[in-house]
Amino acid sequence: MIEQSPPPQLLDVVTKVDARLQAVLDHQYDHWHGVDPRLGEAVAELARMVTSGGKRLRAAFCYWAWRGNGGADHPAAARSGVHGVDGPDPEELIISVGAAFEFLQVFALIHDDIMDDSATRRGTKTVHVANAERLEEMGWRGEARRFGDGVGILVGDLGHVYADQLTNGISSRAREIWDELRVELNLGQYLDMRSAAAGALNRETATQVATFKSALYTIVRPLQLGTCVHEGADIRLLEQLDRFGRPLGRAFQLRDDALGVLGDEAQLGKPVGDDLREGKPTELVSYALADADDEQKQVLSAIGRNDLSAAEIAELVTILHDTGAVERNEGEIKRLLDESTSALEDLPFDGESKDALAALANYVVVRNY
Amino acid sequence: MIEQSPPPQLLDVVTKVDARLQAVLDHQYDHWHGVDPRLGEAVAELARMVTSGGKRLRAAFCYWAWRGNGGADHPAAARSGVHGVDGPDPEELIISVGAAFEFLQVFALIHDDIMDDSATRRGTKTVHVANAERLEEMGWRGEARRFGDGVGILVGDLGHVYADQLTNGISSRAREIWDELRVELNLGQYLDMRSAAAGALNRETATQVATFKSALYTIVRPLQLGTCVHEGADIRLLEQLDRFGRPLGRAFQLRDDALGVLGDEAQLGKPVGDDLREGKPTELVSYALADADDEQKQVLSAIGRNDLSAAEIAELVTILHDTGAVERNEGEIKRLLDESTSALEDLPFDGESKDALAALANYVVVRNY
Repeated sequence: MIEQSPPPQLLDVVTKVDARLQAVLDHQYDHWHGVDPRLGEAVAELARMVTSGGKRLRAAFCYWAWRGNGGADHPAAARSGVHGVDGPDPEELIISVGAAFEFLQVFALIHDDIMDDSATRRGTKTVHVANAERLEEMGWRGEARRFGDGVGILVGDLGHVYADQLTNGISSRAREIWDELRVELNLGQYLDMRSAAAGALNRETATQVATFKSALYTIVRPLQLGTCVHEGADIRLLEQLDRFGRPLGRAFQLRDDALGVLGDEAQLGKPVGDDLREGKPTELVSYALADADDEQKQVLSAIGRNDLSAAEIAELVTILHDTGAVERNEGEIKRLLDESTSALEDLPFDGESKDALAALANYVVVRNY
Repeated sequence: MIEQSPPPQLLDVVTKVDARLQAVLDHQYDHWHGVDPRLGEAVAELARMVTSGGKRLRAAFCYWAWRGNGGADHPAAARSGVHGVDGPDPEELIISVGAAFEFLQVFALIHDDIMDDSATRRGTKTVHVANAERLEEMGWRGEARRFGDGVGILVGDLGHVYADQLTNGISSRAREIWDELRVELNLGQYLDMRSAAAGALNRETATQVATFKSALYTIVRPLQLGTCVHEGADIRLLEQLDRFGRPLGRAFQLRDDALGVLGDEAQLGKPVGDDLREGKPTELVSYALADADDEQKQVLSAIGRNDLSAAEIAELVTILHDTGAVERNEGEIKRLLDESTSALEDLPFDGESKDALAALANYVVVRNY
């Protein structure tokens, strides 16, 4: 039996990052609720989504890459102000950056959920759906969908600002990475949505989307930002971290794609099958299309129809298995994890940090939610 | 005849800021178009909105407050690297910050236009409407509205990231202001939208929305950020700039409200009357409600109906005149400009900067678009 529970090196980071997230949310809520209770509502909606779940993986990759590169003992960290007055405490800074990744992720999820019209996320109602219902319950004027989407857009934007605010104090090199990953995140989502609309379900596009949204945003950039968070930190590791993070990020996406179609809805906290209804260009589907016979191809052509029934989804899942697509996807995940693990061994990190990153890497690909 | 054309002190900033905006957009477009032509589309949509207009007022207030506080000759500016290697060139930095305000404004407009479902902006099709039409023209799958809104959300988010990127190098105090104004912008819009939905058309709410969205975001924060853009700049001016900017910002909003109902559609580049259809809580409307007789109140109660015809809008406009609301609004604008001008005289700025800020203040309240 493969271990599917989060490793202790992740849980330790989760505890610290969650405390920081809660402190920011409490402070902001108290302030804005005091100005006008209606303003507090927007902060409360953001808090609802931040505290409903999330694996805090980006924060953990960021933290352990920082530790691997010397952490608070790194000469650059010392200069940044732990013993002086020039900068923030290094441990406090890296935890703030971890919290920044989590706010950014919630911003992205809230906006993605509007684009996909997803009803649930992290086991709770999505912001746009909850607020569309609110308008109707309150008997307010206007179109419920328009209002719900509007609140979702604004609450997401607010999360984006808090994310950015938490990066204050990072090095100029780290800021370049932070800016770059945000552009990649948005353009990756654009390509994803546009490909689904245009029906461009080919493997090349699926790989490109996965590179932006998972490999870079979820793994490579958090690792890189972690190592160079202090001004003057050694940046020669960036290339090596790319070799560790990129295949792992791709494996992460392949696992996500499999869970989105084959996973357990209760554990995932979001509906299963929606990826097929949206025509999401996954490698899993592209494997099936490549190896399907004519009859199977006919069934697969229904992918992207947003009214697919549960029975039709089940039929599609059967074909994903029968064509060997699921098995091929699992094989690819294993190959990528091996490639990643081999690059990790070459990193000039201490044993504790390498063990932590290996545990995170393993968790990323075997997780069931 | 009151002078309604932009003053030279604004046009000078416009030229420099537009060049910076164009340089960022060209660079980003070339890069992402090279990666994948589809990614270039998202940058092109942002560029379309950035280059279709905009008065660049925030950039101009920011620039002239910087000049007033010593500009490139300020000791803090010299330290920041104009003659050394530590920081960006001061003039380049303040123009980048001006461009940041313009990207932020475009981000806010694109998102607001989705919330209001506005069809035109700056005389061109809004991003969400143009892309909803694109889906249909291309025969792509999915719902046109969902796709158009999704593209609008992402293109707006991209503008938000570029805005932020352009602030790199500002002082920690300036960054606090930048973070604060973005929270105020989003929460102000939330309050605006929520009040319209809940039908809370009272003057107190209208004033609060105007404080966030105009007084602070458009005038006070750009002024304050401009004066302390360099690390170590004197921050004692922040309070004084508030006294100049806050009444001016309120006057700016009152002019905007009047133009949104009484202005010329071709000059404004957006539909006139939509504020009444949305039930936007303006002071203009609250004045009319306060002084209307029973029959007029009956007509005014139609405000907020999104199917108001042009004839019904015209009838509402007549009542805004007849109740004296338009005149009262003009009187309030004049009073606020006087208050603002008096605070400007007390600022320890050189004559050239004061003249520029006075010209900008006058332009803000007499403009006809």
